[in-house]
Amino acid sequence: MLSKENFKRDLSLVREKSPLVHNITNYVVMNNTANALLAVGASPVMAHSIDEVADMASIASSLVINIGTLEKSWVESMIVAGKTAKTRGIPVVFDPVGVGATPYRLKISEEILKECSPSIIRGNASEIISLVRAGVKTKGVDSTAAADDAISSAKELAKQTNAIVVVSGAVDVITDGERVERIYNGNALMAKVTGMGCTATAIVGAFAAIDTDLFNAAAYGMATMGVAGEIAAKSARGNGTMQLYFLDALTNLSTMDIDKVFTC
Amino acid sequence: MLSKENFKRDLSLVREKSPLVHNITNYVVMNNTANALLAVGASPVMAHSIDEVADMASIASSLVINIGTLEKSWVESMIVAGKTAKTRGIPVVFDPVGVGATPYRLKISEEILKECSPSIIRGNASEIISLVRAGVKTKGVDSTAAADDAISSAKELAKQTNAIVVVSGAVDVITDGERVERIYNGNALMAKVTGMGCTATAIVGAFAAIDTDLFNAAAYGMATMGVAGEIAAKSARGNGTMQLYFLDALTNLSTMDIDKVFTC
Amino acid sequence: MLSKENFKRDLSLVREKSPLVHNITNYVVMNNTANALLAVGASPVMAHSIDEVADMASIASSLVINIGTLEKSWVESMIVAGKTAKTRGIPVVFDPVGVGATPYRLKISEEILKECSPSIIRGNASEIISLVRAGVKTKGVDSTAAADDAISSAKELAKQTNAIVVVSGAVDVITDGERVERIYNGNALMAKVTGMGCTATAIVGAFAAIDTDLFNAAAYGMATMGVAGEIAAKSARGNGTMQLYFLDALTNLSTMDIDKVFTC
Repeated sequence: MLSKENFKRDLSLVREKSPLVHNITNYVVMNNTANALLAVGASPVMAHSIDEVADMASIASSLVINIGTLEKSWVESMIVAGKTAKTRGIPVVFDPVGVGATPYRLKISEEILKECSPSIIRGNASEIISLVRAGVKTKGVDSTAAADDAISSAKELAKQTNAIVVVSGAVDVITDGERVERIYNGNALMAKVTGMGCTATAIVGAFAAIDTDLFNAAAYGMATMGVAGEIAAKSARGNGTMQLYFLDALTNLSTMDIDKVFTC
Repeated sequence: MLSKENFKRDLSLVREKSPLVHNITNYVVMNNTANALLAVGASPVMAHSIDEVADMASIASSLVINIGTLEKSWVESMIVAGKTAKTRGIPVVFDPVGVGATPYRLKISEEILKECSPSIIRGNASEIISLVRAGVKTKGVDSTAAADDAISSAKELAKQTNAIVVVSGAVDVITDGERVERIYNGNALMAKVTGMGCTATAIVGAFAAIDTDLFNAAAYGMATMGVAGEIAAKSARGNGTMQLYFLDALTNLSTMDIDKVFTC
Repeated sequence: MLSKENFKRDLSLVREKSPLVHNITNYVVMNNTANALLAVGASPVMAHSIDEVADMASIASSLVINIGTLEKSWVESMIVAGKTAKTRGIPVVFDPVGVGATPYRLKISEEILKECSPSIIRGNASEIISLVRAGVKTKGVDSTAAADDAISSAKELAKQTNAIVVVSGAVDVITDGERVERIYNGNALMAKVTGMGCTATAIVGAFAAIDTDLFNAAAYGMATMGVAGEIAAKSARGNGTMQLYFLDALTNLSTMDIDKVFTC
């Protein structure tokens, strides 16, 4: 079960060290992702050119890859950056946005899994299920195709990839294939704000940058999202103010807020 | 004249069906467009890669093409997606951002009109006038070049293209070339928020996704914008809060708000 | 010392003339940059395609080049637009985002300095120091490499480039290589909002579009930022609301607010 003391320590570490988080992410969320990372205390950088991604990944403390608005030249850069991160031993956090929507997203996600060996994968239930089924198909293992819930898919994906897998939703699930942590914080209005999932992936990237225990880093990142979302929802009146009040809540997140985390 | 009962029915339908609206739009507005579509109840997706636009347009209920920050590779994708949408019979909503500003925008807009046969075209007065004049020049019809107001240009463009044409402004005009609907809602502060026009195009796309009467869909979309803008302006103190309160107003739009629509 | 009367006159001029500011900038900030320009009274356009940048720069009153998320094809467009602006005699304002982070950013920044001869360069202390050191290295002048503060670097860069150089920070510094203006307005929360520096560059671009005295234009732009930031910080509760209240403050900036500018 998540240690609130260690979570508090890690939040302080993020703010103190302000780790550089290198994002190759989608156009829709770049502004909010950068602001969320700044709010939590990290230092964001967005860079995608093939001419500099290896250099940028070389000075970063973690790398976030997000395929929300992918295209050929960006994918090439994702893989170069991912390989650099892998070589350097910094964590790669992968967000397979909409992986089930088109064959291209699935193909690229499989390529990223293979080439960059992400340390953490975060998606919603549909994405995680799509991804593990693809893995299954690729490997010709029929049994798992019957997986009918996100938790078993997440466990299976974690085993296939050796990554920590996070399924975000009303209840967030974090698993390494064996252990399962559930976080019950959050608010339904979060799902009405575009890119909240992408923000979660980036925040997980911030914790992964300062804690080598990536299971815990993922859990702290998701708990941060949940608690900030609850605080924001108290005064938000729609998805417009929700987006902004969420950033405010992240900016001001206190150890007392962390005490509100509800896990099991 | 716009039926408020049908408008209420359509707003409920958008929220109930949550249609997938595929956007190939500009970098400036992607975040707000996605949030506006979520707020009104639709399901937005942004995808522009030539490797997936046909697949994405194949599962969408409408396609929104916006040339705000166009470039060669994006235009190719717009046309592939537009042709896919046309083949499938889903509506294509076209936003010719800044079409009069450069020869390139005009050339591409003409290409999109020709290749994708948009079902609805939405622009401000300058854009619609620029577009119809280009059409005129192309066709060597001098008379219309004298068109000195947006309504006659809009009617002419609707006749040339067989599209519903929307001219947004202090008063929004919707025409099929014969019929003209005017919507008097809105607030001057909307023009100070970047991409409000682009948002309008996307919201029209949401209604077009669930109502085959595209004249009505366009009118309901514009009326939604106008009413939400009025509500937001009551508490906004500048274009910053206006942008967010507008999203909040969309999130909470009620049948009572729809009763405030003023048309003729 | 900054003339508040002339500053007031220039703010009125921006609002009255609504100059077209052509931005080739990064994905993270496009929305906020556009809204900030609208809020202050200017007319923003974002356009980066090689097929139209020369045409767009030909109708603009100033050009803003920002390398925040640069890549090869964008750099080509920046240089074409910059050369067009130079030929036409309109000011080019350059923002060397993260120039010290990767060799690529440095190489491109040097290329832009050489090809586009920016009239104004704005960066934070690290960026200006990185840029002048590169200039030094390129020219083999060792002495300046010892420059250990931003002001001497800024002066050196201004002399090397014949540009007005702005170093933004807790105190903003504007120099032409000889004269130095310092602006003491602003608030620490501004640094927690992504792209505030990019916004500053664009606002400087708005003043440069209507005042041929570029030293003053740069000072007025930075003072506008500082004063609006102070107003916004009074009610902001985190970087979320800060971003929006800042735009509100820009929208409503009055001559009374300008009286609060503190320089020396």
